[in-house]
Amino acid sequence: MDARFTGFCNNLIVPLLCAAILLVATPLAVADPLASWNDGASKARIVSFVQDVTDPTGKNYVPPAERIAVFDNDGTLWSEQPMYFQLAFILDRVKALAPQHPEWRTTEPFKSVLAGDMAGVAAAGEHGLLELMAATHAGMTSEEFARIVSDWLATARHPRFKQPYDQLTFAPMRELLDYLRANGFKTYIVSGGGVEFMRVFAERVYGVPPEQVVGSSIRTRYELRDGKPAIVRLPEIEFIDDKAGKPVGINRLIGRRPILAFGNSDGDFEMLEYTTSGPGPRLGLIVHHDDGEREYAYDRKSSVGRLERGLDEAAQRGWVVVSMKDDWRTVYSD
Amino acid sequence: MDARFTGFCNNLIVPLLCAAILLVATPLAVADPLASWNDGASKARIVSFVQDVTDPTGKNYVPPAERIAVFDNDGTLWSEQPMYFQLAFILDRVKALAPQHPEWRTTEPFKSVLAGDMAGVAAAGEHGLLELMAATHAGMTSEEFARIVSDWLATARHPRFKQPYDQLTFAPMRELLDYLRANGFKTYIVSGGGVEFMRVFAERVYGVPPEQVVGSSIRTRYELRDGKPAIVRLPEIEFIDDKAGKPVGINRLIGRRPILAFGNSDGDFEMLEYTTSGPGPRLGLIVHHDDGEREYAYDRKSSVGRLERGLDEAAQRGWVVVSMKDDWRTVYSD
Repeated sequence: MDARFTGFCNNLIVPLLCAAILLVATPLAVADPLASWNDGASKARIVSFVQDVTDPTGKNYVPPAERIAVFDNDGTLWSEQPMYFQLAFILDRVKALAPQHPEWRTTEPFKSVLAGDMAGVAAAGEHGLLELMAATHAGMTSEEFARIVSDWLATARHPRFKQPYDQLTFAPMRELLDYLRANGFKTYIVSGGGVEFMRVFAERVYGVPPEQVVGSSIRTRYELRDGKPAIVRLPEIEFIDDKAGKPVGINRLIGRRPILAFGNSDGDFEMLEYTTSGPGPRLGLIVHHDDGEREYAYDRKSSVGRLERGLDEAAQRGWVVVSMKDDWRTVYSD
Repeated sequence: MDARFTGFCNNLIVPLLCAAILLVATPLAVADPLASWNDGASKARIVSFVQDVTDPTGKNYVPPAERIAVFDNDGTLWSEQPMYFQLAFILDRVKALAPQHPEWRTTEPFKSVLAGDMAGVAAAGEHGLLELMAATHAGMTSEEFARIVSDWLATARHPRFKQPYDQLTFAPMRELLDYLRANGFKTYIVSGGGVEFMRVFAERVYGVPPEQVVGSSIRTRYELRDGKPAIVRLPEIEFIDDKAGKPVGINRLIGRRPILAFGNSDGDFEMLEYTTSGPGPRLGLIVHHDDGEREYAYDRKSSVGRLERGLDEAAQRGWVVVSMKDDWRTVYSD
């Protein structure tokens, strides 16, 4: 609030009117919608982009309907170490279901999971992972699956931070989602994670409703179960929403090219490339995990969330590399 | 506006205040948001349902985020006779492309299309239709396809009404879409038609944005074309959004069970069944094409938009059968 204006008010004959103006103006002037971001080049690029596309008098104005912003989830909106959280769900689920499956004690990849032998799980390769998916993600209705995920989130804890997994979302990113929505953007998740897994918490945690979650999926079938219509999950991969699959998923579900894309790994490269190559103003951003103290430090050599091409080409493509260490005042929450 | 209230205003000492109230109150009191619907049971059911789910003090209140309404397109939002409009597009497109394909003059199903022999086209069966789809819907980028459809809509005319096809949308349905949106509903198209075909006109004609169109699709691939990122359409069916495919498509793209579904054929049966079997207030509606004079009259015996099971079971399931003849004051527009 400008001091001259306050002074002017004090001397004015209509103090009530002034009070009303102060009431309205003060919160706008004081609150920083991106308070978890340190002042610096990354924050400045975001704010100037948003001001640019929302200024109705500017040449870069974008109507609200076209303000589509897409966000990767694992490593971008929440952590992804020491393993993808959905993989932790799968492993926990195998353990929970094991009493009903005595044969798993002697059959891979279940045997390795039950023994906590991650090298053995990895050795089972893609086929092993598909078997684990089928055993833990299929056979039930979509509604039943949502309850299973919800129950898991309520009880499971991250091995390092000892917190529920859905508490390990990044405060600066939640703020950014809010900030974009307050500026007329429609915010989407576009992730390699399972769409029906993410929908369970995306609305509560990120404010992203189910219809704005794009993800990998398994086939489903409509059928009457006990006389009641239900969507039943089948043990068959339908779509992998990763790498070149991300622009395909975006076109399939959104049908417009986004103007802002935010990722963290080379799995997001094509999504950023597709987003930033359209006409008009565009913004591509990458979270760089360089903060081993508050979160994790990894990039080129990581098996999870590997980031190499993105780092190499970000500068020439005009993408913003966000340093978790330098750009974020807080990581999870205060 | 109540005459007593107007009189009260005339005698009042604060005429300015009254003018303001009149200004605000008049349009609300006078305008009927469903003016193209005749007063009767169908209209009453719609209005009472909307009042019911939007009354925050009522036991049937539904929060805006869950007010999902789904609409079939062919035969529900626009006409589908004498053939699906997308089929008319395919036939026109084959004729337009024929000079570049001299071999089509002697190869089915193209030969029949070029000769205007619809029995011959039908005889080529599903395989023939897939060949026509591949020749007219694939090979180009999504953006190029949208331009082709847009150009076709600008020039093609319906054989009976001599109007552009996108002028043959139903006024009562456009009003209903507006009315639902004004009451906090999110309106979706869920149609057997091609999703990228419908997206070209859905926003302009129905106010339904691309991301709220669910339809049948062919596979696409992300690639660099002439160095530019593009979504390229492949000659392979990905998903048929019809019959039991409709609830699957709804779950896949929306991820919530709708509370209102509107269709016109047995291809919509499962969508209505899925929608109306959830808990809480639900509304299922079927347009009955019984108006050969203003549009078309067909149901149980039609090859396009066949309606039999829906008519048989509507009463027991509590679905509203909307008579085009009796319930609609206008069909297309005044």
